[in-house]
Amino acid sequence: MTASRYDVLGIGNAIVDVIARADDDFLVAQNMQKGGMALIDEARAQAIYDAMGPATEISGGSAANTIAGVASYGARAAFVGKVKDDELGRAFAHDIRAASIGFDTPPASDGPSTARCYIMVTPDGERTMNTYLGAAQDLHPNDIDPDTIASAAITYLEGYLWDPPHAKDAFRKAAKAAHDAKRMVALTLSDSFCVDRYRAEFLKLLRDKTVDLIFANEAELKSLYETADFDTGVAALRQDAKLAVVTRSEKGCVVVSADGVKAVPAASVDKVVDTTGAGDLFAAGFLVGLARGSDHVMAARLGALAAAEVIQHLGARPETSLKALGQENGLL
Amino acid sequence: MTASRYDVLGIGNAIVDVIARADDDFLVAQNMQKGGMALIDEARAQAIYDAMGPATEISGGSAANTIAGVASYGARAAFVGKVKDDELGRAFAHDIRAASIGFDTPPASDGPSTARCYIMVTPDGERTMNTYLGAAQDLHPNDIDPDTIASAAITYLEGYLWDPPHAKDAFRKAAKAAHDAKRMVALTLSDSFCVDRYRAEFLKLLRDKTVDLIFANEAELKSLYETADFDTGVAALRQDAKLAVVTRSEKGCVVVSADGVKAVPAASVDKVVDTTGAGDLFAAGFLVGLARGSDHVMAARLGALAAAEVIQHLGARPETSLKALGQENGLL
Repeated sequence: MTASRYDVLGIGNAIVDVIARADDDFLVAQNMQKGGMALIDEARAQAIYDAMGPATEISGGSAANTIAGVASYGARAAFVGKVKDDELGRAFAHDIRAASIGFDTPPASDGPSTARCYIMVTPDGERTMNTYLGAAQDLHPNDIDPDTIASAAITYLEGYLWDPPHAKDAFRKAAKAAHDAKRMVALTLSDSFCVDRYRAEFLKLLRDKTVDLIFANEAELKSLYETADFDTGVAALRQDAKLAVVTRSEKGCVVVSADGVKAVPAASVDKVVDTTGAGDLFAAGFLVGLARGSDHVMAARLGALAAAEVIQHLGARPETSLKALGQENGLL
Repeated sequence: MTASRYDVLGIGNAIVDVIARADDDFLVAQNMQKGGMALIDEARAQAIYDAMGPATEISGGSAANTIAGVASYGARAAFVGKVKDDELGRAFAHDIRAASIGFDTPPASDGPSTARCYIMVTPDGERTMNTYLGAAQDLHPNDIDPDTIASAAITYLEGYLWDPPHAKDAFRKAAKAAHDAKRMVALTLSDSFCVDRYRAEFLKLLRDKTVDLIFANEAELKSLYETADFDTGVAALRQDAKLAVVTRSEKGCVVVSADGVKAVPAASVDKVVDTTGAGDLFAAGFLVGLARGSDHVMAARLGALAAAEVIQHLGARPETSLKALGQENGLL
């Protein structure tokens, strides 16, 4: 195994977030499942946009947010994902490159426009997402360069990749390239509804060791094992996964491995403004910890710190340097 | 004079803000005048965008921000300004209509793209702006409907309208329509460099009473009268203006009228995040106060409250209901 060029390479849907504040009545009127992510077509996207309040556009996408967090911690990062060569696609590409992230996936020159996620943030800070996949539909195994994957210490994939038609093949190609090079493969389960759509396939990824590290939140864990009981889910996960982290919002997280189950508390937060990206940024910190050779508890603390930063402002990418924040908190 | 349909109608450059954090070294390296607004061409816009950090896109434009504040206070508001029918132009139109603001200016179907303002926010919260006027160049007197102007109690105009070639004619047409209907005409001086470009014309607007109410900050006042002394500027303004408000950041403002000069303090602020829109939102509150028939001191307090809200987050439009905030603070 040669020295790595990247600490973490992420593959995911390249999405621009369109964020607006909304009250709970709006979610009800629009038939939105609070806290979830729904896939929508272009007509529904237009209808939601017409109904929603004044919005802010910020680059998003789950794995892309994670990679932005990795770069903000000062680690070497790359991203693979598909935009169109339109105004939002160019904004996505600008934002990711401006964060010192390697990004070489060619944009689509025709076909649907760059993916957008319409995010309603309710007064409690919870976010409810509606994703129009657009150009992200066209991520293809050809967009995966095995040499680039082999040059990354960790390849990080999002469960949402199961939604576009060819992206799961890109995922499998990347996972094989990573393992051929003796690198680590990590997966986030993304969303409990996503788990519901692809439960059997996700369990197979775990059990056949396509994935070395898995991130889930409580709802995703319970959906994966179709249980209402957290401890039952954790016990099942311990059987299936080499290494797993289950995040529990303000209750912190548990790290699940052959060594046992370790709980790590959440970092303190003054005021929750927008929870979008909390899980993504937790993953960022944990991956940075692993890449630095930290133990699992320290990695989880880096994750918790990044998650705490991102939920205190609108948008799913860090606004302050996580490296500086980590240093101030004695974690780096 | 018939009953008004709108409390305030604003006319200005329709601009989408592209906001990134930057340090002072970046401003120096890019030859940017800290705190000012520079006009840039498309090539310079691209060069700045390539050099700047990850950005957030939020609808902006000085008068448009003011009108968003007027609507947030629950007053009846309309806006006139030119976008192109492109992604950012559609976002601008969505955001302004979603804030319950009347907006009927037809978008340009060809020509330059929707105007963008590249805003660098330094760690002290100060903003430095670079504006590519794009489609806003094409605002034309034909875009002014005298009946709509006549239906607004106050028509509010930005000094920046002197930059595009035909917009000052649109301004004069609107001011005439307003006065013909015995309505009020208000102007903001916009920026000290803008005042420097158009000093003689702005003084004439005041002295020939084309404008009934003028907003300026300290730098703009000093530029207008080419003086380094605040009191000298205020004395000169009192000669020229029927009614004027000079804002002084954390020192509050002074209201200048035939009755004398009254100082009103700023509203308290926990932490300044981004000063973009402070002057725009002050004007919003003051105009709402006038439209409600409040006295000048109460109007200035409504202005100060709105300015305090907008400088505590990224972006130049209110994120919370100013009406609710005004009620909580006993001003409404």
